[in-house]
Amino acid sequence: MESIPSASFYCKYQARWRSTKSLLCVGLDSDIAQLPDCVLDEANPIWEFNRRVIDSTADHACAYKPNLAFYLNDGLRGLEALQRTVEYIPDDIPVILDCKVGDIGNTMEQYAVSYFDRMGFGAITLNPLMGSDVLKPVLKKPGAFAFALALTSNPSAKEFFQEGGMADKVSAWINNYPQEQLGAVVGATQSGDLKRMRELLPGRVFLIPGIGAQGGDLDSVLQNAVDSAETPNILINSSRGIIFREKTPQFAQAAGLAAKELKGLAIV
Amino acid sequence: MESIPSASFYCKYQARWRSTKSLLCVGLDSDIAQLPDCVLDEANPIWEFNRRVIDSTADHACAYKPNLAFYLNDGLRGLEALQRTVEYIPDDIPVILDCKVGDIGNTMEQYAVSYFDRMGFGAITLNPLMGSDVLKPVLKKPGAFAFALALTSNPSAKEFFQEGGMADKVSAWINNYPQEQLGAVVGATQSGDLKRMRELLPGRVFLIPGIGAQGGDLDSVLQNAVDSAETPNILINSSRGIIFREKTPQFAQAAGLAAKELKGLAIV
Repeated sequence: MESIPSASFYCKYQARWRSTKSLLCVGLDSDIAQLPDCVLDEANPIWEFNRRVIDSTADHACAYKPNLAFYLNDGLRGLEALQRTVEYIPDDIPVILDCKVGDIGNTMEQYAVSYFDRMGFGAITLNPLMGSDVLKPVLKKPGAFAFALALTSNPSAKEFFQEGGMADKVSAWINNYPQEQLGAVVGATQSGDLKRMRELLPGRVFLIPGIGAQGGDLDSVLQNAVDSAETPNILINSSRGIIFREKTPQFAQAAGLAAKELKGLAIV
Repeated sequence: MESIPSASFYCKYQARWRSTKSLLCVGLDSDIAQLPDCVLDEANPIWEFNRRVIDSTADHACAYKPNLAFYLNDGLRGLEALQRTVEYIPDDIPVILDCKVGDIGNTMEQYAVSYFDRMGFGAITLNPLMGSDVLKPVLKKPGAFAFALALTSNPSAKEFFQEGGMADKVSAWINNYPQEQLGAVVGATQSGDLKRMRELLPGRVFLIPGIGAQGGDLDSVLQNAVDSAETPNILINSSRGIIFREKTPQFAQAAGLAAKELKGLAIV
């Protein structure tokens, strides 16, 4: 651990857990088509929306996770909103870019520079299909962190993760790399799957999507995926259930209440 | 085939092959750090570079393929360069965005809208790890096309594609979907692999990276990956070997000559 900078994602995440006891990752899937009317006249609606959501949820959040798709979909203005969002989030809260990136060599170096150095994210989500070449540019950056897709919760995830054996294979692969730089995205709909993934990946930080809109069950996550009460090593992501709880002028207040509620339910 | 619009990527690609007899895909991996000095004073160096490369290579190109990483790495200006590039490429030349995207549901819909509708790409590269949910938003768009990663040529590709059996599994998966909307990315370094992938995927359009800088062998591609002399169904991508052939004020002329040369060598 001595070689991991204190500003690393991993240290920041563990410190944030200890200080807040929150397992909640607030997913900033700020779809321009879903924003409340009251922000649409702003010069940059997504940024204005995010700023107010962050103000109201920060006390309850262990981490934030914007998803690249929703920003690219608003073009240059969207990319600017993403940049301003990551700069705005308080420095003690870790931020993950959900981009599910996976490329090699020269190309992956460019993504790593963009996402970690230029934009300032602490972690990214990563698609491991092309093998360890995808991970190398992340590992080379002290303090950088990636969550590799190890099992997802969508209906067709079974095609390769389960029937194709990729959940087991990716888990074995993840265990080759330091837990201070590599965690796992683990889908949250099947309790047996969660239990097995934790057995395969002790000590790893899990990013768990699928709570709420995707049908994952919070109790099952708490029973099966937690590493230990002291160091749970899970981030439970909720996006639409928090940020779009109310599409009224009080959207930010509603998001804050939703975040507080979910933080209160997700107790280890 | 009647349901496929003539403006579809697939029809445009086949028509472009028939009219040019070019198998060449020019990869616009326009790394800002590698651009010739003479464009660096331009307001948007990547755009200026691409414009001139396109002017000099268009006669020899069957397709163009910008890679998202190199544009994101120049921030808002890079995204603008990408947008201007795809708009500038003559309408009869198909354009592929190399983004290796793979996400689900709501999120993948956003990427599809961004890349096909907003930006105007004809095709994207796609990471199939999460299963068919990744493909659905592409299939829903008449004329849209994706190249799924089926086998790549990087050193660690063996970890999952070969030793993990994913090359075979993804190939079987690809065959479930129409060839007018789904092709394959097939790495180009091993002749036996190429031959096998063509046996597994008859009638599919292959996007073949790895020629030149990545060490792929052109003769091996022509001998093993071509579907038929009439309909070869391969796009041979070369990036740095063309666009960075010379880093002088004559870079565009050199790129044109390099493209002409590679087109002339890649004869079926």
